[in-house]
Amino acid sequence: MQKIGFIGLGIMGKPMALNLIKAGFPVHIYVRRAELLRELTEAGATAHASSKELAEQVDVIITNVPATADVEEVLLGKNSVIHGAKPGAIVIDMSTISASATKRIAAQLESKKIEMLDAPVSGGEKGATEGTLTIMVGGKATVLEKVQDVLNTMGKQVTLIGDHGAGQIAKACNQIIIAETIVAVSEALRLAEASGVDAAKVREALLGGFASSRVLEIHGKRMLDGDYKPGFKANLHRKDMHLAMDQAHLANLTLPGATYAMKCIDRLVMKGHSELDSSAVHIIAEE
Amino acid sequence: MQKIGFIGLGIMGKPMALNLIKAGFPVHIYVRRAELLRELTEAGATAHASSKELAEQVDVIITNVPATADVEEVLLGKNSVIHGAKPGAIVIDMSTISASATKRIAAQLESKKIEMLDAPVSGGEKGATEGTLTIMVGGKATVLEKVQDVLNTMGKQVTLIGDHGAGQIAKACNQIIIAETIVAVSEALRLAEASGVDAAKVREALLGGFASSRVLEIHGKRMLDGDYKPGFKANLHRKDMHLAMDQAHLANLTLPGATYAMKCIDRLVMKGHSELDSSAVHIIAEE
Repeated sequence: MQKIGFIGLGIMGKPMALNLIKAGFPVHIYVRRAELLRELTEAGATAHASSKELAEQVDVIITNVPATADVEEVLLGKNSVIHGAKPGAIVIDMSTISASATKRIAAQLESKKIEMLDAPVSGGEKGATEGTLTIMVGGKATVLEKVQDVLNTMGKQVTLIGDHGAGQIAKACNQIIIAETIVAVSEALRLAEASGVDAAKVREALLGGFASSRVLEIHGKRMLDGDYKPGFKANLHRKDMHLAMDQAHLANLTLPGATYAMKCIDRLVMKGHSELDSSAVHIIAEE
Repeated sequence: MQKIGFIGLGIMGKPMALNLIKAGFPVHIYVRRAELLRELTEAGATAHASSKELAEQVDVIITNVPATADVEEVLLGKNSVIHGAKPGAIVIDMSTISASATKRIAAQLESKKIEMLDAPVSGGEKGATEGTLTIMVGGKATVLEKVQDVLNTMGKQVTLIGDHGAGQIAKACNQIIIAETIVAVSEALRLAEASGVDAAKVREALLGGFASSRVLEIHGKRMLDGDYKPGFKANLHRKDMHLAMDQAHLANLTLPGATYAMKCIDRLVMKGHSELDSSAVHIIAEE
């Protein structure tokens, strides 16, 4: 089995790494937080002092960090993956970052004969824990083939979208659809409530018809219960919406619906709710 | 079995009436178009010369007409249902009309001891033909109970939302969610295309994740194929969006996402595409 290096053991990364260990992959980690380090090594992971040292020991390096700058740091920075990885190693970046930065990073890694896939995910903490993530892949089909088993351990649906960056574009599409559908469901439930009608019954009826969606099902319930424990935090959805809108800007599109949804999430974060699930835009609309 | 009068045998009404005939209900019709008249009477329906005459013969009167004014005409106008229906008769209005007009009409019918339910539907021509509509009901539970079998013949999910008009409010919520989700899916597919990525693969990947919806599945496919055969015609969705926004106005809500989606459908109709499926907003955004 391929030796896996895992960098970025947050809400998503930790359960993903644990699933790899459970599946029998030798997992190497680079992590700074002592508590996480203990939990993962107790589960069977091998710890390293830097990304470079980790990269020297493994065949596949998975990164799952917050932003473009973090990916650049662990892959291209001082004591980073590019300085340790063997020729033929494969980097799978599962973070959600800029598609154009992804292309640039892939080119730099390629100059050292290191392969790269962008493979952002959808499905949240639940999907990460249950190994049922949706994984959107950009890069070469021949490279994907080599790590198909690794990705199948973390996700139930792995789709090769296109070349480097295409996975990130698909993720941007995913995030704007979710944000805009959250706005739609929030507006519908407010229309019901403000009209004196039981919004829970409206949701129930609509789930059987053409207006049905995962967002109506899951986030609609959150809105009715006023329970915004994440799920997917507003500050992360905000980051993703800005990435998507940057991409729209590059592609010369305006996307007014997505722009409005982004502003709603911006406002939610500005009001101090960055740690709530992003479906909490429902509460700020009411203020 | 109750004798049913059916008024409004359009794209939706005709298959609904045929399903009632198939289920064994004696169905009476009032229809002006000779061709429809022949088709329905050949299927077993009994024709009448006016809404009043039809109402005299039946226990339940179903209306499924385009707009508020049409419902008022067939229920309250000259030679209409109110002048023929027996005390205890039940009117089921399955049209999509104003919630406030529904309350007014129900009150007028009640003064003649005629019961009324508003019962607009979602599910399109396909749902009407297959008897799998989602039916959103407003009115008294005791009245719904009496016509449950009739509604179950036409729909797979019948939900009592609340009192008179509540079905129409739920339908308004349904229509704004669909319109806003159409905008979201259209924007996402345009972002993929304009970024040089295969939009069909993006749709496929996203259907497995949190962004999935009936709209992404059905309308996303229409957008990729450029096939806008309705489905649900833009001019009807436009009418429904204006009803929903009128209701939002009455409830003192602005609903910016729904307002933008309404403007997209307005623009589609203005540009001469009123007979296309409303998901054709995807083409006008590109112009």
